[in-house]
Amino acid sequence: MSEPPISRFSPPELAGLPRDMRERIEAVQEKSGFVPNVFLALARRPEEFRAFFAYHDALMEKAGGLSKAEREMIVVATSGLNNCLYCVVAHGAILRIRAKNPLIADQVAVNPLKADVTPRQRAMLDFALKVAQRSHEVGDADYEALKLHGFSDDDAWDIAAIAAFYAMSNRLANAFAIRPNDEFYAMGREPRR
Amino acid sequence: MSEPPISRFSPPELAGLPRDMRERIEAVQEKSGFVPNVFLALARRPEEFRAFFAYHDALMEKAGGLSKAEREMIVVATSGLNNCLYCVVAHGAILRIRAKNPLIADQVAVNPLKADVTPRQRAMLDFALKVAQRSHEVGDADYEALKLHGFSDDDAWDIAAIAAFYAMSNRLANAFAIRPNDEFYAMGREPRR
Amino acid sequence: MSEPPISRFSPPELAGLPRDMRERIEAVQEKSGFVPNVFLALARRPEEFRAFFAYHDALMEKAGGLSKAEREMIVVATSGLNNCLYCVVAHGAILRIRAKNPLIADQVAVNPLKADVTPRQRAMLDFALKVAQRSHEVGDADYEALKLHGFSDDDAWDIAAIAAFYAMSNRLANAFAIRPNDEFYAMGREPRR
Amino acid sequence: MSEPPISRFSPPELAGLPRDMRERIEAVQEKSGFVPNVFLALARRPEEFRAFFAYHDALMEKAGGLSKAEREMIVVATSGLNNCLYCVVAHGAILRIRAKNPLIADQVAVNPLKADVTPRQRAMLDFALKVAQRSHEVGDADYEALKLHGFSDDDAWDIAAIAAFYAMSNRLANAFAIRPNDEFYAMGREPRR
Amino acid sequence: MSEPPISRFSPPELAGLPRDMRERIEAVQEKSGFVPNVFLALARRPEEFRAFFAYHDALMEKAGGLSKAEREMIVVATSGLNNCLYCVVAHGAILRIRAKNPLIADQVAVNPLKADVTPRQRAMLDFALKVAQRSHEVGDADYEALKLHGFSDDDAWDIAAIAAFYAMSNRLANAFAIRPNDEFYAMGREPRR
Amino acid sequence: MSEPPISRFSPPELAGLPRDMRERIEAVQEKSGFVPNVFLALARRPEEFRAFFAYHDALMEKAGGLSKAEREMIVVATSGLNNCLYCVVAHGAILRIRAKNPLIADQVAVNPLKADVTPRQRAMLDFALKVAQRSHEVGDADYEALKLHGFSDDDAWDIAAIAAFYAMSNRLANAFAIRPNDEFYAMGREPRR
Repeated sequence: MSEPPISRFSPPELAGLPRDMRERIEAVQEKSGFVPNVFLALARRPEEFRAFFAYHDALMEKAGGLSKAEREMIVVATSGLNNCLYCVVAHGAILRIRAKNPLIADQVAVNPLKADVTPRQRAMLDFALKVAQRSHEVGDADYEALKLHGFSDDDAWDIAAIAAFYAMSNRLANAFAIRPNDEFYAMGREPRR
Repeated sequence: MSEPPISRFSPPELAGLPRDMRERIEAVQEKSGFVPNVFLALARRPEEFRAFFAYHDALMEKAGGLSKAEREMIVVATSGLNNCLYCVVAHGAILRIRAKNPLIADQVAVNPLKADVTPRQRAMLDFALKVAQRSHEVGDADYEALKLHGFSDDDAWDIAAIAAFYAMSNRLANAFAIRPNDEFYAMGREPRR
Repeated sequence: MSEPPISRFSPPELAGLPRDMRERIEAVQEKSGFVPNVFLALARRPEEFRAFFAYHDALMEKAGGLSKAEREMIVVATSGLNNCLYCVVAHGAILRIRAKNPLIADQVAVNPLKADVTPRQRAMLDFALKVAQRSHEVGDADYEALKLHGFSDDDAWDIAAIAAFYAMSNRLANAFAIRPNDEFYAMGREPRR
Repeated sequence: MSEPPISRFSPPELAGLPRDMRERIEAVQEKSGFVPNVFLALARRPEEFRAFFAYHDALMEKAGGLSKAEREMIVVATSGLNNCLYCVVAHGAILRIRAKNPLIADQVAVNPLKADVTPRQRAMLDFALKVAQRSHEVGDADYEALKLHGFSDDDAWDIAAIAAFYAMSNRLANAFAIRPNDEFYAMGREPRR
Repeated sequence: MSEPPISRFSPPELAGLPRDMRERIEAVQEKSGFVPNVFLALARRPEEFRAFFAYHDALMEKAGGLSKAEREMIVVATSGLNNCLYCVVAHGAILRIRAKNPLIADQVAVNPLKADVTPRQRAMLDFALKVAQRSHEVGDADYEALKLHGFSDDDAWDIAAIAAFYAMSNRLANAFAIRPNDEFYAMGREPRR
Repeated sequence: MSEPPISRFSPPELAGLPRDMRERIEAVQEKSGFVPNVFLALARRPEEFRAFFAYHDALMEKAGGLSKAEREMIVVATSGLNNCLYCVVAHGAILRIRAKNPLIADQVAVNPLKADVTPRQRAMLDFALKVAQRSHEVGDADYEALKLHGFSDDDAWDIAAIAAFYAMSNRLANAFAIRPNDEFYAMGREPRR
C-alpha cells in the first residue's frame, strides 16, 4: 500500500510557507520528532492556520486552574463523542504523556464514565460533554455542579471553551479527513512504574 | 424588568481593554450603531478574542466562490440546528441584509429544506449541516455532490470551515448565555420592493 | 421569481366554498388584512377544515388559566421543535402581538430555555415540549411540577392539548408544504416602549 | 386490585352530557358492546370532543383510495412509533377486524418492515411514518414514491392527514394516560380460515 | 398467499439433526404443540444452537429472586424497545401464560411505563431497559435503585444478563427475519377470572 | 491508588471452580501470560460462563469465509459504537495482533469509516454496525450489498451473529463494569516493518 494521504486536501510545500508558519512547524517537529499532520493540512490557508493555533495556544498552553493533562482529557473525551480519529489518536498521545498514565486516553475516549479519574475530573468531563453535545441545555445547575468541586468561574470558562474549540477542530479533521500520524498511536504507552 | 445581563460572565470595561480590541469594537459600533454583545462577552479573554475574530474574518470577510450572503446562510442554518439563540438572531439580521431578503433568515433557521434558496445553495446547506451534525460520516459522496453544483475544492473547504467555526461559536454563545442585542431582531425586515 | 405556491396541494377557489367556510375566511381576512395560507390550504377538504378550526378555537380562543399569549408560546415552542416553518412564522407573529413583545417569538422558537419568560411559563413550556417529544414518558412528576407553579388540572389539560393539536398541525403544514404568508414575518416587531 | 382509572382526568357522568355526545357514545356502545375509554376521557371537554370525533370521522370513515383496514394500519404503525398504548391496543383490534387478519396488528405495531403487507401498503406506511417522525423532511421524493405505487394526490393527503391526526391523538392518550378497555386486547384474534 | 418462510436462512431438516438437538426440539413441540421457529432457524448451526439454548436455560429456567413471569417481562420490554417482532410475539405469549394476565404483554411491549406492574417490577424494567439501551451509562445509582426495592446482587446480575442475552437474541431474530409462529399471537389471551 | 476491582461483582476463587472452567482459564493464562478479567468476572455463574465461551468459540474460532482478524474488526467496531471499554481494549489488542497492524484497532473503534480497510471489509462493517444499532431495519438490500462484495450466505450469518453476540457481551461488560486488564492496552502496538 502506498503512503496514504494526510488529508483530503493536498498540503502546501513547507518551503513555500511564510516564515512564521515554517518556524512554528519546525518547532513542533523538533520537539516531537515529526510534524503532526494537522499542521500540514491547515497550512493550506495561512490566515486560518494562524488563528487556529493562536486560539489553541490561548486555551491549552496558558496557566490556570486546570492542569495540562486535564485539558487534554477534555479534548479526548469530546473527540471520542464526535468520532474524530485524528483528535482521539493525537491528543490521546499527548494526554498519556501529560498524565503519565498509559491507560487514561483509551478510557476517556471510549467511556469517560469508566475512566480512572477523580470525582472533580468527572464533573469537569460531564460539563465538557454537555457543552459538546447539548450546549443549548447548559444552565445554572451545570455551573453549580462545577462549583461544588471547587472550579472557579474562569475554570468553567476554560472547560467550555476547550470543548467548543474541539467541536470545531473535530469537524475540520473529520470533514478534511486529516490522518493521524502513525507515531501517535504508540506514544506514551510505556507501563507506569 | 431590569436590563438583562449580556452573558453569564460579566464583561470587562471597554476603557480598560487593549487598544487593538477597543478599535475593533468601536469600528463595529460605528458601522452598526451598537456593540454586538459577543464582542463584549469574549473581551474578557483578550487572546481568545483576537484569535476568534481573526478566524472569523479569515472565513467570513475574504473573497471566494461563496457570496457573503451564502456564508451567512451556512451560519444561520447550522446555528438553528444547534439551537443557538445569539447566532440565529444576530446572523439572521446580517443574512437578511446581505441577501436583501427579509424572509430568508427565518426560513433557513427553522427548516432549510423549505427555504427560498437555489438548488446550488441547497447543496451547500446540506453539506454544511452534515459537517455540523455528523462530520464523522462526511465522505467522497458529499464532496461529489458539491462538485455537481459547481463548487470548487476551495469552496468545499470554506463551507466545512464555516460550519466548523460556528459549531464552536454556537457552543460558546450557548454555554456563556450570550444574549443577542435587541436591535438584531428587527434589522433587515423591510419588505422587498 | 414567480409567486411561490402556497402549498403542495392547489387550493380551491374561494368563491366555490360553502358559505360557512367563506365567512370564516373573510372574517380573518378582514381582521388581519390578508388570508393566512393555512385557511386556503386546508379548504380543499371542507369537513377537515371545519373540524380543524373548531378544535383550534376550542383550545386557543376560550377563557381559562392560560393567557392567550401563553397559549401561543406553547405553539411556537413546540413548532420550533418540529421545524415547522409555517407555524413558527405565523404563530410567532401572533405571539409577538399578544405578548406585546417583539423578541419573545424568536427566543421561544430557537431555544425556550433562553427565552424571557417567567419560571411559571418555563414550567409550562417544559411540560408542553415533553408532550410534543416524549409523550409516552409523561407521568405524575410532570403534573406535580405544574402544580408547584399554580397550574390547575384544567390548565394541565390545556397545555397538553395545545401541544398535541400542534403536533398534528405541524405535521400537516410540513407534509403539505404550506408556505407562511410574507406578511407574518414582520408583524409585531415594533420595539417596546 | 381495584378497577384502574380510565384516565388521569376523571370522566364526566354520561347522564350529564349534551344529547349529541350521549347519542354518539351510545351508538358506539351498541355497536361494540362497551364504551371505548377515549370517548369518556375526552367528554370532559364537549367542544374538543366534538371537534376530535368530527375530524376522526372525516379521515377514517369516508370513501377514498385507501381501504378502512389500510387507514387503521397507518394508525397502528404510527401509534407504535409513539409508544401509545391506548391507540395500539384499541386500533389494533379494529385493524384485525377490518383486515380480517389476526396477526397484522402486532406486526405493524412492533415492526412495520416485517409485517405481511403488500409493497403498496409498505410504501404507504413508509410515508406515514416519515410524517409522524420527521415531517419537516418530507419532500418531492416521498410523494413520487407514493405515485409509483398508484396513490393519487388525494390518497397522499389522506395518509399524511391520518398520520398527523394520530400524532395528536397519541399525545392526548399518552399525556392523559387513557387506559385501553380490556375488551380490545382479545378482539379479532380468531384464526383465519 | 403461500406459507411465508420461517427465516431468511432456510432451516435444516429435523431428521438430519444431531440427536440432542432433535430431542430438545421434540420436547418443546410436545409441550407447546408446535415447534417455535427460533429452534428451526438456529438449528442451521449446531454449536451456536447448543450455546444459545444453554445460555437461555441458565438465565430463564433457574431458581432465583425473579419469578419466571418477571423474567419474561424483561424480555418483552427490551424486545419492544428493539422492535423485535419474533421476541415480542413469542415471549409475549409466554409472559401472558406465566403471569396469568392476558393484558400484560401488550402493555409491557408498547409502553412499560403504562403497564400494570408493581413499583418493584417497574424498577426492574427501568434497569433492564437502561442495560438494553445505554449500558455504558449504568452506574452505582442504578444498582442502588434496585436495592431500594429489595433486589439482591444476584437479582441485579439476572436482570442485566437477561437484558443482555435478549439484546443478542433480538438482533439475531431481526437480522435473520425469524417469523413468529402464528400460534403465539393468540396464546394466553383468555380473560382473567 | 489500590488495585481497582476487576468488576462490580466480586469474582470467585479460581481454586474453587469446577475443573473444566479452571482448565479453560489456565489455558488462556498460559497463552496470554495473564487471565483476562472477563473470565474471572463471568466465572461467578458457571452455567452462564460455559454457554458464553462455547458461543464465543463457535463464532470466533471456527473456519469460514471471514479471517480471524476480520471477526475481531466486527467486535471492535460494534464495541466502539456501544462504548464498551472492556471489549474495545481487550479485542483491540487481539485485532492488532491478528491483523499484524498496530493502527487498525483505534481506527475501527473511533470511526470505522476512516479505517484502513478494504472495500469488502468496509461492507462487512457497515452490515455489522447496522445489526448492532438498527437490526429491525436490516433487509434485502443489506444482504445484497454483502453479496456484491463476495460474501456468502454463511458469511452474512457470521457477521450478524458476531455483531449480535457482542451486543450481549458489551452490555454485560458495561453493566458489570468489567475492567480491561492493563496488559491489553499496549499489546500489538509494535510498528510494522
